[in-house]
Amino acid sequence: MRILLTNDDGISAPGIQALMEVLSEVGEVFVVAPDGNRSAVGHGITLQHPIMVREVKLQNTTGYAISGTPADCVKLAVQGTLIPSPDLVISGINQGQNLGTDVLYSGTVSAAIEGALQGFPAIAVSLDDFISNDFSYAASFTKNLSLYLKEMGLPRDTLLNVNIPAVPEDQIRGVKITKLCLMRYDNVFTDRISPKGTRYFWQAGEIVADQCQDPNTDLEAVRQKYVSVSPIHFDLTNYRIMEQIQNWKIPV
Amino acid sequence: MRILLTNDDGISAPGIQALMEVLSEVGEVFVVAPDGNRSAVGHGITLQHPIMVREVKLQNTTGYAISGTPADCVKLAVQGTLIPSPDLVISGINQGQNLGTDVLYSGTVSAAIEGALQGFPAIAVSLDDFISNDFSYAASFTKNLSLYLKEMGLPRDTLLNVNIPAVPEDQIRGVKITKLCLMRYDNVFTDRISPKGTRYFWQAGEIVADQCQDPNTDLEAVRQKYVSVSPIHFDLTNYRIMEQIQNWKIPV
Repeated sequence: MRILLTNDDGISAPGIQALMEVLSEVGEVFVVAPDGNRSAVGHGITLQHPIMVREVKLQNTTGYAISGTPADCVKLAVQGTLIPSPDLVISGINQGQNLGTDVLYSGTVSAAIEGALQGFPAIAVSLDDFISNDFSYAASFTKNLSLYLKEMGLPRDTLLNVNIPAVPEDQIRGVKITKLCLMRYDNVFTDRISPKGTRYFWQAGEIVADQCQDPNTDLEAVRQKYVSVSPIHFDLTNYRIMEQIQNWKIPV
Repeated sequence: MRILLTNDDGISAPGIQALMEVLSEVGEVFVVAPDGNRSAVGHGITLQHPIMVREVKLQNTTGYAISGTPADCVKLAVQGTLIPSPDLVISGINQGQNLGTDVLYSGTVSAAIEGALQGFPAIAVSLDDFISNDFSYAASFTKNLSLYLKEMGLPRDTLLNVNIPAVPEDQIRGVKITKLCLMRYDNVFTDRISPKGTRYFWQAGEIVADQCQDPNTDLEAVRQKYVSVSPIHFDLTNYRIMEQIQNWKIPV
């Protein structure tokens, strides 16, 4: 099994390092990842500049550090000449959750979406902790999931978004198949004035606490210490309202 | 009617200028747009740096030039304190098509998705030409569509992706409600060596010519000189395969 590994925290981040180690036990690992942090770049790609590529010696393999986005990494890996065609695309392990509609902003998830868009089975993996360096359970879960997917296959045009609670392994309650929750934030922007008198904003915000209590959502599953696995597609057509607007008389 | 106007080509691009002019005839226009070109940044947002804001005098209103992405512009406009809450979010007119799965890469479409995500009716508008400065028909179509949407309303969690053929107005054959096509490209990456001996790639590619001949797709509609209007949602959950993978026994 040939595995293409990428992320959005950068090629030297601990989450991707943890995956390199365990995945080399189950297949040939090819690392094509950003040369630095690309968190929250969404599904951006690089069209205005060239994409620089630097070979990097890694534990068990050679990797490629890329000056572009996570989606660039996957496109370049599967459409370029750097590496052979993979059997599975894995993006992560991200430092921090990627839940609900926030996946739209996520470089990690977008890389996996790009993998599926290019016709490959793909998974995105995130650890629900912005600080912890302990990726051991998340890495071993991902390894087992990779083997399971090799056996089961993934339907075309689908990827899996995996979020792992940051709790000791014996407190994990199981795996839940979930839907994405509609994420809401409060106090998103802080309005400030720079020392030179320029107005600027910081974007952050806190998750609205009482949202998404539906136990079938990814957010609630992780809160309840389940590993959340959400099947994701990339067809943004809203077929549900197609018929309704077919009857409109939009002026030409 | 209060209209929030943004784009990804930047606040001084001709497409957004054309919209400012015609939309000021039908409502109060607030412009919050990137301070320069942000094409293909997808749904990226700015979390690692502050977002700088500069007031700009425009034809009929004051605008805000933003150092961030198109999605930042919409988030800041509707969650920050810059402008009053809009009745409609419009992103465009983009210089160049935004069709099919390419909307995932599009800053223009992502801005409109962000509008819908925040609960506002939203449309993204693109002109199928990377050079032409003649946005007059596209602008007048968008103005009429805005008035029509004011009357009809848009279902929540839905936006419209509009693509306008770059042909003389009398050659436009009508409006088609379309689905997004799965876009395929050939020859995406050019492999080069810099003067200093570094390997790099340019990303570009050509649309695979014979794809998407289904007349119900956006790509084919625009090819046939129809204005393409695609209803878009932002729920990436793949409900179709939910039941199937509910039965999986993923190892914990």
